[in-house]
Amino acid sequence: MQSSRITLLTDFGTQDGYTAAMRGVIASIAPHAWIEDATHDVPPGDVFFAAWTLSRYWQLFPANTVHVVVVDPGVGTSRRGLVVEARDRFLIAPDNGVLTLALAGLADSRAFEIANPEYQRQPVSSTFHGRDVFAPVAAHLARGVRIDAFGPPASNLVRLDVPTAQRTGNVIVGEVLLNDRFGNLITNVPGAWLSHDLVAAIAGREVPLRRTYGDAATGELLAVIGSAETLEISIRDGNAALVLGVGRRAEVQVHPAR
Amino acid sequence: MQSSRITLLTDFGTQDGYTAAMRGVIASIAPHAWIEDATHDVPPGDVFFAAWTLSRYWQLFPANTVHVVVVDPGVGTSRRGLVVEARDRFLIAPDNGVLTLALAGLADSRAFEIANPEYQRQPVSSTFHGRDVFAPVAAHLARGVRIDAFGPPASNLVRLDVPTAQRTGNVIVGEVLLNDRFGNLITNVPGAWLSHDLVAAIAGREVPLRRTYGDAATGELLAVIGSAETLEISIRDGNAALVLGVGRRAEVQVHPAR
Amino acid sequence: MQSSRITLLTDFGTQDGYTAAMRGVIASIAPHAWIEDATHDVPPGDVFFAAWTLSRYWQLFPANTVHVVVVDPGVGTSRRGLVVEARDRFLIAPDNGVLTLALAGLADSRAFEIANPEYQRQPVSSTFHGRDVFAPVAAHLARGVRIDAFGPPASNLVRLDVPTAQRTGNVIVGEVLLNDRFGNLITNVPGAWLSHDLVAAIAGREVPLRRTYGDAATGELLAVIGSAETLEISIRDGNAALVLGVGRRAEVQVHPAR
Repeated sequence: MQSSRITLLTDFGTQDGYTAAMRGVIASIAPHAWIEDATHDVPPGDVFFAAWTLSRYWQLFPANTVHVVVVDPGVGTSRRGLVVEARDRFLIAPDNGVLTLALAGLADSRAFEIANPEYQRQPVSSTFHGRDVFAPVAAHLARGVRIDAFGPPASNLVRLDVPTAQRTGNVIVGEVLLNDRFGNLITNVPGAWLSHDLVAAIAGREVPLRRTYGDAATGELLAVIGSAETLEISIRDGNAALVLGVGRRAEVQVHPAR
Repeated sequence: MQSSRITLLTDFGTQDGYTAAMRGVIASIAPHAWIEDATHDVPPGDVFFAAWTLSRYWQLFPANTVHVVVVDPGVGTSRRGLVVEARDRFLIAPDNGVLTLALAGLADSRAFEIANPEYQRQPVSSTFHGRDVFAPVAAHLARGVRIDAFGPPASNLVRLDVPTAQRTGNVIVGEVLLNDRFGNLITNVPGAWLSHDLVAAIAGREVPLRRTYGDAATGELLAVIGSAETLEISIRDGNAALVLGVGRRAEVQVHPAR
Repeated sequence: MQSSRITLLTDFGTQDGYTAAMRGVIASIAPHAWIEDATHDVPPGDVFFAAWTLSRYWQLFPANTVHVVVVDPGVGTSRRGLVVEARDRFLIAPDNGVLTLALAGLADSRAFEIANPEYQRQPVSSTFHGRDVFAPVAAHLARGVRIDAFGPPASNLVRLDVPTAQRTGNVIVGEVLLNDRFGNLITNVPGAWLSHDLVAAIAGREVPLRRTYGDAATGELLAVIGSAETLEISIRDGNAALVLGVGRRAEVQVHPAR
């Protein structure tokens, strides 16, 4: 069976033609594959940001979709390249932890190391495996090459250390995982732990829990259960990250309203 | 009949995976639809900017194209979601005025409220209707679901108040609607009102009317009839918005050259 | 035979709906063409940047791909529009030198001037030939219109003056052509001239030659043979352009290590 959809997540930006090079390589091998841009604007080298972003969409795509992730500060070193099958979808990425969140809690995934030179663009450069390794592997996979043809099974994948929120009595302590374009501070506090008699505290401010942005006045701080089903700190029609002056790793507490 | 092309206009940026989530939802429901990015870089929450941008391209696409617009500061509140048929094309958007310019002057449009939960992703989050409401509705529409299946007819759509230029004697007074990436100041003065014996005045400067950028010297201010067929103020190889220090709402006058 | 893939390279950015307008025009004429974004983030009016970027991907796409390039400060003037066949692919661009690097050294290209109004969107605006000229020409070409139907043969294409590196004894003198999103300084020094007993000198700093980024310590300057097979100056996990305070046109020397 052929998979015919390939998504691309990189930190290449869109200015330099690097993503176009990947598209060209894919189109030459698998001319009938749909190529979808997930994002190319991951902050350069930010493996955690990429891991988070990937976790937000990869399972929403149909079965057999091939997801390519190239945030790869270790390109050209001995770090492995991986091709993974999970939940009837495929993930292709350097083995640097970028798949940590996608694969968290999945028992049924199979990983292989990208080793077979036959499915790579020769000669492989030492700085652009997106074009020379990951794009051609994705295209061959989309054409129906079996996952175990790319190389030997891989185990002990690199995993990022992802902070988890803690609950002690009726106080939750978590942290900001990252902030999005709107300045929403996305935390690791599970939405399932929250109820409307709680308030969040961050950067010395108390923030009430609301159902959605529109339930706050313009310019007001609010906490919501965001689309990732975790606590998010926002400002109605504003940028919470800028106003509070905090970002990733900032502590957030949640406790009963007084 | 199936429509097989869906365009996406949002203010989500491309960094966070939000647009990828929408693409995944669409691809899972309508795997043969072409998904086209119109833009994801509308300034956050800027409904007028989105309305203008949409008006520039939606009728250029083929019949049956489904245009999705998600600039939605009121997400999760009681604001309605709309699906509209006009000029043999479809528009899907929150009812916040973002369709004002697209629908201006069209007598033959039909609007429906998005109400049927069957065509939404359940449970619907309170902060991301792009993924949970607008994307699945677009995909079902592209698959051939009839427009009246999504909910009841909707009337009294929210309309933005769009300033219009005024002509008194031989003086035109208008204003800047927005500026584009090049720093061109796009005004509401109709190109049809202009002739080459007129000059524009803005920010205390007099600006001659030219046919195109290349008719001015490098660094020179000029007024042209832009691709939206309205007056635009530009600088040859420069950024008029920055140099003049003005933007949206700035007054522009047009009067006979002395 | 039909070509069914069209790539777009512009300096329009993605905010304003200009690229969506081009996509709409193409889709209306050639509804089965794949439309791929190469980049829309070329610095406004930067013809050399566009020429470089195009040269990085155009031959990676399959035969018959139509590559559209609209970086066009001379839009609306008497500068010609071109459609070129080379290496079984097509290039459509204003005649301002933006094809210089793509066509360098190719003996077998054929160029035609875009003149036939039948394949343009009427009336042609004076400021947006991307929508009115280049997009429709690309779509008609993708539908199988013969290249010589668009206008008369064109010769004496405008060529940019591209600086080349010089080698005198065992010293190489080159310059930075441009810097990419990562702050890598891409030079015109051919990788084939380099060996590991050489060091690069730029902005008063000596920079050792490495195989890849990961061979340097975090924050360390290094020189590598980049994916364009020329010398690049980088900083491991950093931005060389910012740290060195140099960019395009900066001199780089390469000489034997002492």
